[in-house]
Amino acid sequence: MALLTLLTDFGTSDYYSAAVKGTVLRLAPSARLVDLSHEVAPGDVEGAADLLAAAAPTFPAGTVHLAVVDPGVGSERRILVAEAPVDRGAHRFVAPDNGLLTRILNDATPGWRAWSVERRDLFLPSPGATFHGRDRFAPAAAALLRGEDPASLGPEVGDPVRLPIPPPRRERREGEVVLVGRVARVDRFGTLVTDIPSDWAADRLEERSHPPRVEVAGREVRRWVSHYAELTPGEAGALVGSLGTVELSLPGESLAERWGVARGEAVRIVLPVSNGS
Amino acid sequence: MALLTLLTDFGTSDYYSAAVKGTVLRLAPSARLVDLSHEVAPGDVEGAADLLAAAAPTFPAGTVHLAVVDPGVGSERRILVAEAPVDRGAHRFVAPDNGLLTRILNDATPGWRAWSVERRDLFLPSPGATFHGRDRFAPAAAALLRGEDPASLGPEVGDPVRLPIPPPRRERREGEVVLVGRVARVDRFGTLVTDIPSDWAADRLEERSHPPRVEVAGREVRRWVSHYAELTPGEAGALVGSLGTVELSLPGESLAERWGVARGEAVRIVLPVSNGS
Amino acid sequence: MALLTLLTDFGTSDYYSAAVKGTVLRLAPSARLVDLSHEVAPGDVEGAADLLAAAAPTFPAGTVHLAVVDPGVGSERRILVAEAPVDRGAHRFVAPDNGLLTRILNDATPGWRAWSVERRDLFLPSPGATFHGRDRFAPAAAALLRGEDPASLGPEVGDPVRLPIPPPRRERREGEVVLVGRVARVDRFGTLVTDIPSDWAADRLEERSHPPRVEVAGREVRRWVSHYAELTPGEAGALVGSLGTVELSLPGESLAERWGVARGEAVRIVLPVSNGS
Repeated sequence: MALLTLLTDFGTSDYYSAAVKGTVLRLAPSARLVDLSHEVAPGDVEGAADLLAAAAPTFPAGTVHLAVVDPGVGSERRILVAEAPVDRGAHRFVAPDNGLLTRILNDATPGWRAWSVERRDLFLPSPGATFHGRDRFAPAAAALLRGEDPASLGPEVGDPVRLPIPPPRRERREGEVVLVGRVARVDRFGTLVTDIPSDWAADRLEERSHPPRVEVAGREVRRWVSHYAELTPGEAGALVGSLGTVELSLPGESLAERWGVARGEAVRIVLPVSNGS
Repeated sequence: MALLTLLTDFGTSDYYSAAVKGTVLRLAPSARLVDLSHEVAPGDVEGAADLLAAAAPTFPAGTVHLAVVDPGVGSERRILVAEAPVDRGAHRFVAPDNGLLTRILNDATPGWRAWSVERRDLFLPSPGATFHGRDRFAPAAAALLRGEDPASLGPEVGDPVRLPIPPPRRERREGEVVLVGRVARVDRFGTLVTDIPSDWAADRLEERSHPPRVEVAGREVRRWVSHYAELTPGEAGALVGSLGTVELSLPGESLAERWGVARGEAVRIVLPVSNGS
Repeated sequence: MALLTLLTDFGTSDYYSAAVKGTVLRLAPSARLVDLSHEVAPGDVEGAADLLAAAAPTFPAGTVHLAVVDPGVGSERRILVAEAPVDRGAHRFVAPDNGLLTRILNDATPGWRAWSVERRDLFLPSPGATFHGRDRFAPAAAALLRGEDPASLGPEVGDPVRLPIPPPRRERREGEVVLVGRVARVDRFGTLVTDIPSDWAADRLEERSHPPRVEVAGREVRRWVSHYAELTPGEAGALVGSLGTVELSLPGESLAERWGVARGEAVRIVLPVSNGS
């Protein structure tokens, strides 16, 4: 198979992503490369962790994922190789030990294993220490693609760095249940994708007279739809998004821009509790 | 062969285009993927229809083209599979039934066939109805790539939605012929690509003393050249573009920005009729 | 192998890069395509020359590199095929004869050979002369990928156009040595990558009391680090970059924007000469 995905914050205007591809193909000529994205915002480890966790499970078991968003390049931070069950089978990951694998490891708990890449014979000689994507990550990924055992790359580690991503939570109050979360992602369409599982509210979504109320940045949404085209222009609505969480959208426009909302903004969904419940 | 092209408005900052690729590769592991573009403006079905019709004919016969610009995702709009002769041989297309195939079907008339994808066993289970690119389009494309017959995916349909793209026309007036069209596309270089076939004006392009006059947005161009570098800086010129239509360009600058012109702007080309004609 | 890289200024919003890919795959079906970049600034031949020279050496010997940044398309400028030893083995290049291969040829001197592509049977019929990327460059690249000899494509040429890129230089003055160069590249992170080889200053970098002084745009940097994360927010520093030249960086911010510096800006590195030297 030898399928490799690439996720970086290198953009595609510079030579960086091309050099990673060239190095992998030089060291593992039969590799098949697929770009996940090179448009992660510079240094945005959390954004990369989120994108990786959303995209990786769609790939076949056995895929190697190379993810380089690495503001600490050249420092003492470790380079990780990890193996984790992802949905349908084991995938492998090569990434800096800075939290980029947080979502993958959290989702896979407890089935993952990780190693610190320390086989210096793998590393390419380099004038500086600024481009480990080319000089260390790509050769480590190529080693996996050639069939080398992850355990041969360095000692196993049990404590990869994880980002403190706050989980959503349910709060029960007088007369209502409140789901508390955040905007996990703003996408290209300006949709606000929250981290609140829609099935936490699922049994209330049919209550058309008292629908759940979504609150974000001082705004309220009470309109629930099943797809974007149900909304009329100018009307924000809530719906079940592609990863099973609640999202807010404005048809044909960026709701994020309209409301001035970015990733991390607090979100509350208030579920009125009927007298009978 | 199993060559698949991808055209979407997903951008490459989110996980969407990656998830489409991963799903195709999971369901049709030997597929070879080629990006046409993920930078269609959000929801711009007409732009995608235009890009697809320009790019698809360059690919080998047998190529499958997956095009997802789908503001109606989750609604009752159909998902189409189409087979159409494109230049050198039959190509296949998977797209929402919203006009995205307009240009392909118009160009192929009457040789095309289309089916509505309704084989629900193909569709992936999903929490919501917002990402048919991953959950329905990708599996349909993968079925074609695995060799399944388009006719096995659902009932044949004869009435795919088509965009009302106005065709260019010729008007004969006293002493002149006027070619009436529009700006079909503004490209990255700011060139105004019209829909007016250059061979409608071809026999007049040699008349250096009374060249055809191109009018757009209150401006006039009478300078005709064969390539961009013939123009001097600051000088707008007309020429025969890469798809055989007239285009207007300003060397080293965006003419679209300079003149404030966008897609759809009306264009007239006035051909003086000499006394003898 | 039949590996082809693609470097253009076409962007990915238009059909241009897709049409080049389709044409190559139609004419050389077993080719494997890898994007170097399509985001070269429109008409920026020097930027493309730089990117190509940085990326190509990472690829396996035998790779064909197709580079189309071609403001002179349709003019009498030649189309070149070149063969050059690049790091580990011979690579081949297809590019307009406008200086795009300058850095490749300069680095390879004297081992390169070049030919002017004049086999008109290779060229595709086309309504206009604006898209040689599709109509001439892609077929030339496909010919190489199919195993045709570069020498069969046209007559050998010994004088490819080269850009007058000024080399960095060393000046010895009273009490100091001054390294004079320029900003060769501003990357996505806003780092100023100079053309001054870091080993020209290497023996001074350890002198912590009198470190080399980097001057650019009226600013000075005396802080030298080995990697970006050594710098504190707001602090600009100098370091050895990924191609062995000195670069200047500001952590988490664009130094280029902060200082208003672009490619071409003059850079000086002043090495104090100690009394004993």
